[in-house]
Amino acid sequence: MTVMTVAELQDFMKTEFPQASGDVVVDEVGEMTATVRVPFADRHLRPGGTMSGPSMMLLADTGLYIALLAQIGPVGLAVTTNLNINFLRKPAPADLIGKARILKLGKLLATGDVTIYSQGHDAPVAHATLTYAIPPRR
Amino acid sequence: MTVMTVAELQDFMKTEFPQASGDVVVDEVGEMTATVRVPFADRHLRPGGTMSGPSMMLLADTGLYIALLAQIGPVGLAVTTNLNINFLRKPAPADLIGKARILKLGKLLATGDVTIYSQGHDAPVAHATLTYAIPPRR
Amino acid sequence: MTVMTVAELQDFMKTEFPQASGDVVVDEVGEMTATVRVPFADRHLRPGGTMSGPSMMLLADTGLYIALLAQIGPVGLAVTTNLNINFLRKPAPADLIGKARILKLGKLLATGDVTIYSQGHDAPVAHATLTYAIPPRR
Amino acid sequence: MTVMTVAELQDFMKTEFPQASGDVVVDEVGEMTATVRVPFADRHLRPGGTMSGPSMMLLADTGLYIALLAQIGPVGLAVTTNLNINFLRKPAPADLIGKARILKLGKLLATGDVTIYSQGHDAPVAHATLTYAIPPRR
Repeated sequence: MTVMTVAELQDFMKTEFPQASGDVVVDEVGEMTATVRVPFADRHLRPGGTMSGPSMMLLADTGLYIALLAQIGPVGLAVTTNLNINFLRKPAPADLIGKARILKLGKLLATGDVTIYSQGHDAPVAHATLTYAIPPRR
Repeated sequence: MTVMTVAELQDFMKTEFPQASGDVVVDEVGEMTATVRVPFADRHLRPGGTMSGPSMMLLADTGLYIALLAQIGPVGLAVTTNLNINFLRKPAPADLIGKARILKLGKLLATGDVTIYSQGHDAPVAHATLTYAIPPRR
Repeated sequence: MTVMTVAELQDFMKTEFPQASGDVVVDEVGEMTATVRVPFADRHLRPGGTMSGPSMMLLADTGLYIALLAQIGPVGLAVTTNLNINFLRKPAPADLIGKARILKLGKLLATGDVTIYSQGHDAPVAHATLTYAIPPRR
Repeated sequence: MTVMTVAELQDFMKTEFPQASGDVVVDEVGEMTATVRVPFADRHLRPGGTMSGPSMMLLADTGLYIALLAQIGPVGLAVTTNLNINFLRKPAPADLIGKARILKLGKLLATGDVTIYSQGHDAPVAHATLTYAIPPRR
């Protein structure tokens, strides 16, 4: 169902994206899906104590990228070409959870969306749609 | 769960949006959701026999609007402020089905997404995110 | 600067997109730009007498497509993959003018934006960003 | 033409957004426009030596926010509700320049776009469209 495990994905992120891997944790991956998390931490806070917009964008981008790697393996670098994000509610002072699903995994482009929640709350705080250009696979 | 039934919504559309109501059918509404359909018809076709982009945009816009009306009732005109749509696959020569869900129903803004399928196919053909400005409710 | 003239573009549209060519007129094309128009007509009107959202989306999509054809010629079918549009103001009961500019003309993807005005008014009524997938060119 | 000067805007950012003010410099503001810059620095780099996606998103968000403050003054906190960004080219190892323009400054919503360049290069590296919800002004 996936070609990389959570542990392999976390390792790959640590090597290839050291900057994101310190901030984003992979909870699980499934067929065309991934759940990722930004643990609550001071460096992600905005005045007022809520998790920042850039933290949510990082979570969205990393979450769908992880879902993609889990399907196609670590075969070269996909590049984000489009990100559309709606900020819906002030996040709670809690972990951010991103639920990513791939909507289309084509030869050249992959598109999906990520719904972002504050841990322990039902209403989403943000929703993002992203497209990646996939380098040619041999 | 909803303040308008499918029949009431269809009637409201017929009166208020005669141009869309001839093209879009309401299948069902639920809590913060709606399923709508553009029946397969020649006037929606592109060369090659697939359902057109404008038909999908109409379905997305109408679908989320219906979900919104089902929650807040026919209380004045919400206006679309943002539409973002990704075209994922060539639709089949079949009805288009839109699955709409409201992600945020605020006092001033409502945001949601619509995943569009060709009847009888599992893979989505398009995905749209929309925001509406809601007129003040008394 | 361009490989197709306004007359050639208008002819090409008439043959390839009869449905759009009746609604959209090409005013001029330049290096990576095009100006297109939807003449004011009853079939584009919404209740209240303003030009409809679908008319603006058609104008945006056609406008950037024309700008693209003017650069690369009638070499096969580009497909819209993403459209993001913000509706800014109620349009006046007048022609809609779209000013399209290509921001990136790549081998596989082309991206640009279109700012839409009501004829005779300075403030834009809508703004759209679009991406096209370009079929391989020999 | 503007109600805040570049120096006042830079001061306001330093107090209200210490995290962004260390990264983004205001070059100039005009009627409904602003030019901002992320100076080239190691902490913004991705493997390969190019400026990162998050740096471009920060520049876009800050740039349009500055243009907005220059028009309406420091009267409470506008909140980003939507960001759509297209990444067009690999940025050069150079300052990022953002050219922001407000397309609509309404009572409740403001929308605009930001075209991002690498200093010394003509072709844009990214283009973003943003919407802010503006708190009620007395």
